Amino acid sequence: MKAVQVVGYHRPLQMTDVPEPTPVEPFDVVVRIGGAGVCRTDLHILEGQWAEKSQVTLPYTIGHENAGWVHAVGGAVTNVAEGDKVIVHPLITCGLCRACRSGDDVHCEQNAFPGIDSAGGYAEYLRTSARSVVKLDDSLEPADVAALADAGLTAYHAAAKASRRLGPRDTCVVIGAGGLGHIGIQVLKALTPAKIVVLDRNPEALELALSIGADEGIVADGGHVDEVLSLTRGRGAETVVDFVGEGGSTAEGLRMTREAGDYHVVGYGENVDVPTIDLVSSEVTIVGNLVGSYNDLCDLMELAARDLVRLHTSTYALDDFQTAIDDLDAGRVRGRAILVP
Amino acid sequence: MKAVQVVGYHRPLQMTDVPEPTPVEPFDVVVRIGGAGVCRTDLHILEGQWAEKSQVTLPYTIGHENAGWVHAVGGAVTNVAEGDKVIVHPLITCGLCRACRSGDDVHCEQNAFPGIDSAGGYAEYLRTSARSVVKLDDSLEPADVAALADAGLTAYHAAAKASRRLGPRDTCVVIGAGGLGHIGIQVLKALTPAKIVVLDRNPEALELALSIGADEGIVADGGHVDEVLSLTRGRGAETVVDFVGEGGSTAEGLRMTREAGDYHVVGYGENVDVPTIDLVSSEVTIVGNLVGSYNDLCDLMELAARDLVRLHTSTYALDDFQTAIDDLDAGRVRGRAILVP
Amino acid sequence: MKAVQVVGYHRPLQMTDVPEPTPVEPFDVVVRIGGAGVCRTDLHILEGQWAEKSQVTLPYTIGHENAGWVHAVGGAVTNVAEGDKVIVHPLITCGLCRACRSGDDVHCEQNAFPGIDSAGGYAEYLRTSARSVVKLDDSLEPADVAALADAGLTAYHAAAKASRRLGPRDTCVVIGAGGLGHIGIQVLKALTPAKIVVLDRNPEALELALSIGADEGIVADGGHVDEVLSLTRGRGAETVVDFVGEGGSTAEGLRMTREAGDYHVVGYGENVDVPTIDLVSSEVTIVGNLVGSYNDLCDLMELAARDLVRLHTSTYALDDFQTAIDDLDAGRVRGRAILVP
Amino acid sequence: MKAVQVVGYHRPLQMTDVPEPTPVEPFDVVVRIGGAGVCRTDLHILEGQWAEKSQVTLPYTIGHENAGWVHAVGGAVTNVAEGDKVIVHPLITCGLCRACRSGDDVHCEQNAFPGIDSAGGYAEYLRTSARSVVKLDDSLEPADVAALADAGLTAYHAAAKASRRLGPRDTCVVIGAGGLGHIGIQVLKALTPAKIVVLDRNPEALELALSIGADEGIVADGGHVDEVLSLTRGRGAETVVDFVGEGGSTAEGLRMTREAGDYHVVGYGENVDVPTIDLVSSEVTIVGNLVGSYNDLCDLMELAARDLVRLHTSTYALDDFQTAIDDLDAGRVRGRAILVP
Repeated sequence: MKAVQVVGYHRPLQMTDVPEPTPVEPFDVVVRIGGAGVCRTDLHILEGQWAEKSQVTLPYTIGHENAGWVHAVGGAVTNVAEGDKVIVHPLITCGLCRACRSGDDVHCEQNAFPGIDSAGGYAEYLRTSARSVVKLDDSLEPADVAALADAGLTAYHAAAKASRRLGPRDTCVVIGAGGLGHIGIQVLKALTPAKIVVLDRNPEALELALSIGADEGIVADGGHVDEVLSLTRGRGAETVVDFVGEGGSTAEGLRMTREAGDYHVVGYGENVDVPTIDLVSSEVTIVGNLVGSYNDLCDLMELAARDLVRLHTSTYALDDFQTAIDDLDAGRVRGRAILVP
Repeated sequence: MKAVQVVGYHRPLQMTDVPEPTPVEPFDVVVRIGGAGVCRTDLHILEGQWAEKSQVTLPYTIGHENAGWVHAVGGAVTNVAEGDKVIVHPLITCGLCRACRSGDDVHCEQNAFPGIDSAGGYAEYLRTSARSVVKLDDSLEPADVAALADAGLTAYHAAAKASRRLGPRDTCVVIGAGGLGHIGIQVLKALTPAKIVVLDRNPEALELALSIGADEGIVADGGHVDEVLSLTRGRGAETVVDFVGEGGSTAEGLRMTREAGDYHVVGYGENVDVPTIDLVSSEVTIVGNLVGSYNDLCDLMELAARDLVRLHTSTYALDDFQTAIDDLDAGRVRGRAILVP
Repeated sequence: MKAVQVVGYHRPLQMTDVPEPTPVEPFDVVVRIGGAGVCRTDLHILEGQWAEKSQVTLPYTIGHENAGWVHAVGGAVTNVAEGDKVIVHPLITCGLCRACRSGDDVHCEQNAFPGIDSAGGYAEYLRTSARSVVKLDDSLEPADVAALADAGLTAYHAAAKASRRLGPRDTCVVIGAGGLGHIGIQVLKALTPAKIVVLDRNPEALELALSIGADEGIVADGGHVDEVLSLTRGRGAETVVDFVGEGGSTAEGLRMTREAGDYHVVGYGENVDVPTIDLVSSEVTIVGNLVGSYNDLCDLMELAARDLVRLHTSTYALDDFQTAIDDLDAGRVRGRAILVP
Repeated sequence: MKAVQVVGYHRPLQMTDVPEPTPVEPFDVVVRIGGAGVCRTDLHILEGQWAEKSQVTLPYTIGHENAGWVHAVGGAVTNVAEGDKVIVHPLITCGLCRACRSGDDVHCEQNAFPGIDSAGGYAEYLRTSARSVVKLDDSLEPADVAALADAGLTAYHAAAKASRRLGPRDTCVVIGAGGLGHIGIQVLKALTPAKIVVLDRNPEALELALSIGADEGIVADGGHVDEVLSLTRGRGAETVVDFVGEGGSTAEGLRMTREAGDYHVVGYGENVDVPTIDLVSSEVTIVGNLVGSYNDLCDLMELAARDLVRLHTSTYALDDFQTAIDDLDAGRVRGRAILVP
């Protein structure tokens, strides 16, 4: 089958012919790819940023945001059958460790991450596990939701965690209305009655934010922290969800967090650098957020099926993978780029 | 009445005669002091460290860890009566703001802090509020529990917050077995079945820790982080409670925190300085902890009444306040110093 | 001032002239009534059903759903001032007992209930407490929200409790789309992403329910339990909120509750009669629901201010109280009847 | 191998020779039995009480409380290896349904129950699943802990659920200090600082209760409800855990439950029959409790390994199964009867 592979760092991806995967272990599921999201992480992989962390052996097929149709299943698989439309959770997890047994499979002690440390979905077929596939509602198509498998799932997870403490009188500040933020806003709108205040440098992103559920949009042009404080009687928001994590957003995020409030880190880049005396006197909580669990992905698909979460996508044929990569790198993609075999 | 006052920064405290307080507002309660804890914060006040923050006008009476007997009450007070033995919550709170109405009175929007920003308890009498007094069990004496009013209450609060997520298979690392840590260990023991691992540079402090409920004591001599990792299959503890907050304890604390675990900051001094990528990939939560609420103080007194939390104290006559201060400054106090009028 | 009083059971209410209340205790607040809800409980009071429970001395002024303007305040009141628009929480609570200190003021150990056990709001003025008044948003008028003070607050409380465990893949069945159910549906819609399925005997009530946020409406004509089971793959709903509580609704409610689900009782009349073996094998939870707390009322007012909860009302002049009572008794009131002095 | 089988209802169990089980599915685990608990349910099975519910085909091997050593594993098993000491969770669960993915495997949509609906552990070997085996600490022996697999696990689950809301000032009433209650008391003691008040008709059972952690023991001789009310200032306990569920214990349990408190049903027999008006006005929650999850069993084994939960047992050779059954039926077993092959 066709597969797009990393053949070396700082070198272009290469289309190759590789053997089609088949189920090997009893819980294996082979998915015929219907859409594979092209993610900024893929650019970072090519730059070698993940080489040491993933310990992957080159060449290998990338692509970690996948959806499609079940093509073949191992002997113990009972939750999906050939032909089922599915989205693929980015991790393969063991199902037996304490984290997996607690519904917190993201912290599985022996997880694999196809597209990062093993063969991914820039290809015609992908091998994953019965524990990683979520059946899609009839109304959803793989190419439309593929990018929710990782980027969207991360936004869902953070927004869902944040919403647990949000009530009608609370304010949730969202820093960054880009790819993740834009999903996060829709999720917050669906899950919580809190007032949603969105900050972004780009006024167009704020317009989009307001159209999908934000209550307020504030251009991040220097006066934004004060504006949030003034909207919150000088006290700050009960919850801040930071989808940026660089360029000073962490210090600003903490300044906008109310006493006893939660500051959620999702985007990353800079350090959180905060005096312990401030943590203690404000009694603020700083919450790290990774990608969502299998249950989170099921929940997100439910919201997508009810049209409460939508994603704008631009599709490319798998053969045009280089154009997609170049467009992403040049900032020419509107929404998310999706490769369709 | 006699009162020990700050008459200037970088000058000795001074015993003065001041008018005895009387109830002015309907919820006022005047307490005859039975014991006032001498706290390191009192030394910092004298050094002027709190001058700007508290905006207090000199001279004023210090002392923020107080217990005694109700001496007089305002017209609307129904929860205590003259003669009742009480411990005094360090804050006076309004009872009407959202925080107060939610049981989170520590974040009251208009609180006062006797001993810091108004007249405190190094005196014969103290004016506080009906909302700040907790009746003591017959078995407890004011001078024995006074130091639980602030230092102990802070330790209780952090330990109780930490224990909410701790089960039988979890490990809780306590950094620092000093004044606060030593209360925190007893509270953890009473509230949670988790394994309690205590770190301290001082082997004697560890012996005490083991005698009051710690499951393991590790001398913090350089190899301690690795020792904790090895006790936790290389994964770290579900919860770390840091009663130190300086000298590198925050970075160590985070290294000892398991993926998806909680790192509690109680002691302070240095900065928490952590890459956002680490927060995200470990999905750790950093929890600031301030003093406990009124409910926390009630809970702590219940533990004290059942002898589940004990405090070692050294008493001084109020007239000998300077000796107590000097002893504290020189590290000569065993347990907590208490002034008894 | 004018006041409508109970002068004897099984006798008509009577308009009388009584002295205008003034603040007596430091936290007293006198409210000039802008609207007083006429509630079915008022009919029950006249029938003597509450005589023994309330121990009230006749004659007294009834009316427990009140809103208006602050007219005068006691010396210690800081949260409202003369002229403020307010809604009145139905209970006067002490602020000092454990329940009050925990935000659970409904279970205050010494509460009073104006309109039930002391003078209520079918009058020009009502005396209540600073702890019981919630300031209204500029957009809300007392006569429009008065009926949210008790009936609406009860619905809010149950819906908010129910929503704590509801996620996108869950179903919440609402039994009864009448006065309370109709508020409950709006609250569930605002607070949770769960699918809302409403049962009522009256097809018109279901139409209203669908127009304010219900996802499905099922006529309760005998096949409704099976219909719910079929909507939920034979398993039942994660949560059932029963605003009826009689005529067999409790047994039906439990049959529609999924294993490990929650069945909420709000309406009352019959007994819950269930074999312990069924409780154990289904591991269901049965949740009693009383009126909401002060915080609940603040939250509900926020939803009302954002137009997320609306109530249909029919206003009557206070002088026409007997018409309002008669209309309610005869089922002629559309929405809720409100007396306006 | 030897196996003790049900060959007909109302007929004695019969020892037979049956083929030794082998791993068939990839996650199968065959356990060499080290101990099998003899449970009152086994007597009920023989009386045919479970015939319709379990739909089991006779003859079959009973025994649902099992522990032993791993004898053979299927090809996909990674969490245990031959020779490991294990206790066996009573259910075999699918690992893929929503309940299993959420850590709530007891509500698995396709579970099996060896000893009830398929071959159990009154035998030399038992086939179960990798998802059902918990490795034992070196300090624990299979025959000593086998009875914790079901009876103990049920008690753990209820006590752990109850303890989530219990703090130092709370009271937990335990109804029944028999087999389950006696484990429940030890678990409550380990998990919560609440005061534990135990009711039983048998003064000896109360003595045992006091020796393992109960704070108060009250003979259930008629005055016990009043005694509990008097211990709780007339208000009742925050939590009541009823291990009896018959003979009037449910009405008594509810009377002893404080406003807004939790009444846990574990034992069963009679109906809970309570007016909805009482549920509403007291705002009490009635909580059904089934057996514990896999995680609960891991937690319980941790407590057992630390000697915080102990069980008294009387062992019988497998060949003497009839004596064990007879002794249980006649009330001659002290603690729990265990069959050892």
